[in-house]
Order: sequence, then C-alpha cells, then structure tokens
Amino acid sequence: MGSTEKNRALEAVAVFLCDRADEILEANRADIEHAEKDGMSPSMIDRLRLSGDRLKAMAEGIRQVAALEDPVGEVISMKTRPNGLIIGQKRVPIGVIGMIYESRPNVTADAFALCFKSGNAVILRGGSDAIHSNTAIVAVIKEALRFVGTEEDSIQLVTDTDRETARQMMRLNGYIDVLIPRGGAGLIRTVVENSTVPVIETGTGNCHIFVDETADLDMAVSIVFNAKTQRTGVCNACESLVVHRAVEEAFLNRLCERLKEKPVVMYGDEAAREAEPSILPATEEDWGKEYLDYKMSVKTVDSIEEAIAHINRYNTGHSEAIITKSYDHAQKFLNEIDAAAVYVNASTRFTDGFEFGFGAEIGISTQKLHARGPMGLKELTSTKYIIYGNGQVRP
Amino acid sequence: MGSTEKNRALEAVAVFLCDRADEILEANRADIEHAEKDGMSPSMIDRLRLSGDRLKAMAEGIRQVAALEDPVGEVISMKTRPNGLIIGQKRVPIGVIGMIYESRPNVTADAFALCFKSGNAVILRGGSDAIHSNTAIVAVIKEALRFVGTEEDSIQLVTDTDRETARQMMRLNGYIDVLIPRGGAGLIRTVVENSTVPVIETGTGNCHIFVDETADLDMAVSIVFNAKTQRTGVCNACESLVVHRAVEEAFLNRLCERLKEKPVVMYGDEAAREAEPSILPATEEDWGKEYLDYKMSVKTVDSIEEAIAHINRYNTGHSEAIITKSYDHAQKFLNEIDAAAVYVNASTRFTDGFEFGFGAEIGISTQKLHARGPMGLKELTSTKYIIYGNGQVRP
Repeated sequence: MGSTEKNRALEAVAVFLCDRADEILEANRADIEHAEKDGMSPSMIDRLRLSGDRLKAMAEGIRQVAALEDPVGEVISMKTRPNGLIIGQKRVPIGVIGMIYESRPNVTADAFALCFKSGNAVILRGGSDAIHSNTAIVAVIKEALRFVGTEEDSIQLVTDTDRETARQMMRLNGYIDVLIPRGGAGLIRTVVENSTVPVIETGTGNCHIFVDETADLDMAVSIVFNAKTQRTGVCNACESLVVHRAVEEAFLNRLCERLKEKPVVMYGDEAAREAEPSILPATEEDWGKEYLDYKMSVKTVDSIEEAIAHINRYNTGHSEAIITKSYDHAQKFLNEIDAAAVYVNASTRFTDGFEFGFGAEIGISTQKLHARGPMGLKELTSTKYIIYGNGQVRP
Repeated sequence: MGSTEKNRALEAVAVFLCDRADEILEANRADIEHAEKDGMSPSMIDRLRLSGDRLKAMAEGIRQVAALEDPVGEVISMKTRPNGLIIGQKRVPIGVIGMIYESRPNVTADAFALCFKSGNAVILRGGSDAIHSNTAIVAVIKEALRFVGTEEDSIQLVTDTDRETARQMMRLNGYIDVLIPRGGAGLIRTVVENSTVPVIETGTGNCHIFVDETADLDMAVSIVFNAKTQRTGVCNACESLVVHRAVEEAFLNRLCERLKEKPVVMYGDEAAREAEPSILPATEEDWGKEYLDYKMSVKTVDSIEEAIAHINRYNTGHSEAIITKSYDHAQKFLNEIDAAAVYVNASTRFTDGFEFGFGAEIGISTQKLHARGPMGLKELTSTKYIIYGNGQVRP
C-alpha cells in the first residue's frame, strides 16, 4: 500500500472519529459507569473519560501521523561489492504488531495510526475498563477503512479481556512479530516474563537529576522543579535527586523554597535532612521508586563517580540528567550513564517522540534491542536486504 | 575501553591461542574420544575436531575482527531542536550477550572476538560435546586478557551443560541483554520458546530460487548448481526450486545434466516429474524442508504471483532469489518476498557477513526485530540519546 492510499485512509479515520462521536461517547459512558461502580479513583476515571474535544484531539493526532514522512521503502544504504553485486538495505514493515495496554482509550487510535502508517497490521488488547470505548473506536476505524476500500483487518481488537487471552497472545510466535506493552510497571513485567514473542519494553522511569558541585544552582532549581512538577504521572518525570555534598545545603534550601508552589514531599538521606529539615527520612526502597506523584528522593554524594554508580544501580534505563558547568563532568556523565536518554543541563521531561522531533510516539523503549528511547514510525519498521546481481555465484 | 586497548587484547588472544595449542588440542582430543565412544557421525566429529591449522585460522579470525572499525561511540545523527537542545544518537554496547550454541568450538573464539570488539561481555554456553575444548579455549582467552591487564570477566563460560542451566540462562532478564542461539532448528526453537530474555533468532534457511519464464537458463543452471552444491550444510544453501511451467522442461533437463557432477536427489510435483523423469515424487513436507544435504524440492508454478505466494508460505525468512530477464518481475519479487535477503540473478550463498562486506558475522538473523540478515559488529550495539542543553525546561 502506497503512502497516498495510507494517508487517505488515515484522513477518513479522522473524519469518521468526529462524525461518529455520539456512538463512541455513549460506549465510553458505559465504561465510566462501570468504573464508578467499581470505585475507580477520580484520576484514573479522568484518563478513561472521552469527550467531544478529546475525540477531536484524537482525530488531530491521526492527521499529524498522516502528515509524517512514510519510512517504508527507504533504502538506508546501497553499495556495490567487488564481485558486482549491488546490496541495498531497505526499510520494510515489521508485520504484525501486538499492543497490550491499560485504561486510556486514546491509545487505541494512536497505536492504530502509527502501525498503519508504517505498513503494519496491529492487534490491540486494551484493558477491560475501556472495552466498550475501544470496541466502538475500532468499529469506527474499520468502517472508515472499508469506506476508502482498504483492508479493514489492518486493525483487530481482542475483545476478550481476561488474562488468559493476553497470555495466549504473548505466545503467538509466527503470528505476532513484536509485542509492545504500554501501562504500569506490573503490566510490563507480566508481558516480559510471559512472552515468547519478541517484546519491546516501554515506559518505567525512575529518572534522576544529579546536581553537580559546579552546577548553576538557579538552573538546577528551575530544571528540577520542571522535571518533578510539570507533570507527575509520566515516565520522564524526575523521581530521584542526587546532590553533591558541597552544594547540598544551598541548593536544597532554594529548591524547597521553590517547591512550596506544589505539594512535593521529599525523602532524603541523613545529610540531605541536615541540610534541609523539611525532608523526611528515606529508606532503601525510595532509591528505586517511580513515585509518579509529588514525591522525590534525595541522595547525597561526594563525587560524580558516586553519583554515576548510584544512578546506574537504581535507574530503569530511561532518562537521567546532570546539571553542571564542568566540561569533564558533562562528558563523563554522558559516557558512563546507562540509559536511553542522558542529558546535560536540561529537564528529563524532553524524552518524548514529539520533543525529539519524530512527530509521534508509540512508546519509550527502555530496553537495548531494536529501539531505545522514544519510538516513532522508523522504530516500527524492519529492514530487508535487496541484492541486484547479474549471474554471480559463490566461488 | 578504547579501540586501542580492545585491539591489543584481541592480538594477545590470537597469540595465546597459537602458543597454547598443545593444551587446547589435548582438551579437544578428550571431546573427540567421547564423541567417538558415543557413536557421533563422522561429519559431526569433523566439526568438533581442532588442529594446529584450525587454531591458526581461529587466531587469524580474531585478528580480522581487531582490524575492523570499532562501531562503539559513533554518533549516527545529531540535530538541534528549535528550543536549542542538541540531540545525538550514539552507538553503545548492548551489555551482556548470551550465546547458546552447539558443537563447533571455533564459535567460542569467534563469538568472544565480536562481542569484545563491540564492547560487550559475553556468556557462552556451548554443547556438552565440546565442553573440554571450550573450557580450554576460554581459559586461554582469559589468560591473554589478564596478560594485557584487561577485565577477564568479559568472557564467561557456563561449564554446566545440562538443559536446566540453559533454561535458567533464558530467564536471566536484567542480567543478560540478548540471547543469540546458534545451531540446529531444534536448539533455536527451544531458545525462542523458553526465553524471556530478548532473543535474536538465527539461521534456519529454507531458501528458494525461482526460475522465471524469462530466465536466462544458462545463468539459472549455474546459480542453482552453486546455491545447492557449493556447500550443503549451510543455512544459505538453496533447498527449494520453484520453476515456471513455460521453461520447466528445458530448464530441468539442463539442470539435471549439470547436477550429475554431484549426488543430488530432487523431489518434485507431477509437472516437474513429467518434465524430468529422474525427479522423485515430493510430499507436502518437502516444500518446507531444510535438507542441509544434496537434496532439493521442485515446485511448478504458472505465474510469478504463484511463485511469490508459495515462497512466502514455506520460506523461513532467510534468502530467496529470482532468475529473470524481466524488469517488472525483478522489482515485484524484491518488493513482495518477505525474507532477510532477496536476490535477483545471484546465488543465495552470498547471504553472509563476509560476503556483504561486514568483515565478520555472529550469525544471520531471520527475525525482524533489531537485526535482519547477516549480523556484524554494528548489530551487536545499541544506541543511547545524548542531549546537550543549556537550561531548557519543558513548557
């Protein structure tokens, strides 16, 4: 399927999602009622809830994906060998992508758009919380695909939301080429531990910011404040602060003054608590925690080496930052920290497909195979070698 | 560790492997004696056997890897975002690579050299057949690493060769970043089915050559003869022939005449047998078989569409070729065949890291994630994003 046909289909899907809003919102109300009966927390219910505006945003997202360059067919390299064989490496779709995800029904439309644009079929298995919404969204997408005469089986929804079905999906080697779980740490662990289909691990982020002894403290306060509070429930938010002892008191005093704007609770080691009495005592558990809340741990170190060792021990391979004026420390941190994204003097909140300029994102890989960091359309492709010969045989 | 240090260590390993030949050959004799007692086939014993010359070749292979360009540290792309953030993508080692493989002890040295040069640690789990040889080779490698003052734990051998240990290895998420199985189809299937650690599937090759109606029949005979007989026990050998009915009789007669040089047995459908009576009847099973022997199946088709459908149904995603003079058919075949390497007018035997110009090869990936086709040093790396800021926070 060429780019023109794919883009036409995506435009139709965007139109249909808005035109058929009533139907989708009615289905969504059924999910919300269930959730309320089950006593789901208000913030979770908010993630589940759709509205006319949210559907418009969903449609807009699909149009943005349509506007992106099609990665399929690009020949990344092509070389002529001494024997005259011309060997090219060409981007091709992966094939069938399985997504296992939790509440938010907008993932259904997003994931479809990205997989479809990159030439893949997608099998979606959302949570039971959003099953009515997801069923309605997928029905509308399929109708739009039929409308433009495109294969409606490009998208499939697994309507059976019990665990056993998800486990079966995780063992469909030969039918599903890759599984991408999106959701909480528990979901991702379950998929990694049970799947024999290749998995791309996404998301969990215990992100650190290290305030070096040479840091510009104003900059450090501004970046930490942003990385902790701009949004708390996201994987690239800062969860853990590491501070050089030499600047700890001055820095923490200023930071806590600034943090008064938000209800942030800090958990620190002894030195941090001496420097700033408002900090509560941390336990070993705090160093590894992804709070996803107005909470942050504070670890005191005596050197950049100690900071790097601490971060490499407790991080989840997502995003880590150093605030420093030292060229050597900046380079050392960039080289030695083991994570998908390593920052000098910037907020960890930038680890995102849009912020990286990919135009879209299907998730943030925290593993090292295939893709690492924000995954856009390119990361949803594989390659194949195409070889032009004129009779060559192997001597 | 810089390239200079790595290359110095590899040179030491090459020297030590030759210097300590007696020790390694003595260990190898123990394996050979065991194998003979167990009634292993002569061809398998040959794969297991080392000699002074084979050790020299092993050392030479290690020197070739040392001479290759170091992929680690290469910045693949670096762009400045509108907010001034400079975002680069840099090649880094994957981390810890696990290899599970069968008899041939030369894999031990090869795999070490490639993993070490690409900055990875390697955990090797060879077969029980080669345990004495592998133990001796790894001991010598570790001694060479100690000699040059490099971390000897860059290589580890699992000396316990029972299945349970291998299964435990397959579940060491967090300790092993990727598992690469090398060996027969059974070994690879076991690893794929039992591993929760990411796996790169390698090797099985039911490779097809399609002789199109417009094929230059002399070229077709020469290529099929090469792909079938130049070496039979390898994954890129041709196992399955697909022939257009219009040229079948002329082609098969000439091919069989040429194949008389070798003891090749052919299994074909009815049309193939009518065209060439020396062909034995094929069963459904033959279409999917990787013979690894002087055997080949022959399927008759009426069109390129039928050929492509047959190949996409029965192939293992390795290497497929078309012999044709038609521009349209060449393009169609390149586009529509789903495999790691797709050829026009050349032997499938070229799917190989050396032939592709990578200078080395740790295996041939037949999956679509991370790497597809021959894997050299580059495929043993991951990437990380390095981001240079000057105080950016997310609005």
